Amino acid sequence: MAELNIIYVGKKPTMNYVLAIVTQFNNNVDKITIKARGKSISKAVDIAEITKHKFIKELKYQSIKLDTEVLEGERGESNVSSIEILLSR
Amino acid sequence: MAELNIIYVGKKPTMNYVLAIVTQFNNNVDKITIKARGKSISKAVDIAEITKHKFIKELKYQSIKLDTEVLEGERGESNVSSIEILLSR
Repeated sequence: MAELNIIYVGKKPTMNYVLAIVTQFNNNVDKITIKARGKSISKAVDIAEITKHKFIKELKYQSIKLDTEVLEGERGESNVSSIEILLSR
Repeated sequence: MAELNIIYVGKKPTMNYVLAIVTQFNNNVDKITIKARGKSISKAVDIAEITKHKFIKELKYQSIKLDTEVLEGERGESNVSSIEILLSR
């Protein structure tokens, strides 16, 4: 059965996310989506590239989506960019 | 004639790049590629999203590519992630 898992990129070190993703692929997950917003977008790309080049070379980028999310804050709405990278094998 | 232009994202403010892109599209350019490496990747996504949502709503993401580039430095090689966002209308 194909499972769909989502990894949200935050403040942890890059390799924590890479190892979480590698572990999931090694447990028969077929697809993982990496999601990030704002300055974490660069880290999401690092995570995807390191996973693909150093650990699981048969991975493919099935889709890469960019979007803008609206955040509600104390001082009104603000926009933040987001990325969704769908890795599959 | 379709022209292909490339914008390299560096240390200038986000809006400088957005306005450069909008100006080019207004001068009959059909496609623009935004390229960035490392921490500038987040800024590249901001530039693309702001251009698309605030200025030229008919723009499409024709392709989004992630890659790893090898940089030669004084202390040997290092890897850096990169993004190429092809905007077209």
